[in-house]
Amino acid sequence: MITRLNHVAIAVPDLKKAAAQYEALGAKTSAPQDLPEHGVTVVFVTLENTKIELLHPLGENSPIGKFLEKNPAGGIHHLCFEVENLETASKTITDLGARLLGNGTPAIGAHSKPVVFAHPKDFQGTLVEFEQS
Amino acid sequence: MITRLNHVAIAVPDLKKAAAQYEALGAKTSAPQDLPEHGVTVVFVTLENTKIELLHPLGENSPIGKFLEKNPAGGIHHLCFEVENLETASKTITDLGARLLGNGTPAIGAHSKPVVFAHPKDFQGTLVEFEQS
Repeated sequence: MITRLNHVAIAVPDLKKAAAQYEALGAKTSAPQDLPEHGVTVVFVTLENTKIELLHPLGENSPIGKFLEKNPAGGIHHLCFEVENLETASKTITDLGARLLGNGTPAIGAHSKPVVFAHPKDFQGTLVEFEQS
Repeated sequence: MITRLNHVAIAVPDLKKAAAQYEALGAKTSAPQDLPEHGVTVVFVTLENTKIELLHPLGENSPIGKFLEKNPAGGIHHLCFEVENLETASKTITDLGARLLGNGTPAIGAHSKPVVFAHPKDFQGTLVEFEQS
């Protein structure tokens, strides 16, 4: 059901500096892209088998803003797993006793695909996004 | 230079419960393996493109023990990137102004390959392991 790790999202206080670190280490990085509907500016770091998404707050109500207040040096914000069937995965997660964030209804994620998030306290202390592949 | 994300390591308070969550979601998991020289018991979760390593403390001086005291629900402990040449990567990291943990000399990691760790404060608030591929 889970197939691939789509990306690791890392919130960073300085997008240029973080991107430069990955570039110096030979990884390909994208130009910064503003995603105003998600309150973030993102730089994609392409590795051979997956992506790192470097996130920086955009606008006043960014979901990353509070995270960076608590973690001023940055930190891993979430993991995103691809699933073959989001409805089945959502049911499995709640059947396991784990909560989904919000009302559990899939939202459209940053890749324009339906996503749900599991509650970190119910899933190894880790914010996990499940994305319809 | 960085080629692949080798794994995401997640410290968990309950190895069986964490493994069961991934199994229910259709991922393959290994039997728990004790790595006494690293102070952890690990369950490998195999995805199509990378691995999740679920870590639990083993013994009294486990590096995971303090982490779980601070994060009782668990949490992402580190990322591991494969690099083609660990010596070159180490020099690049320090040339960027980021510190390496310890004395910066490669140690033998949990996969029996040489590894170094970058200081989280100098690398997006994230503990990053670089492993010779």
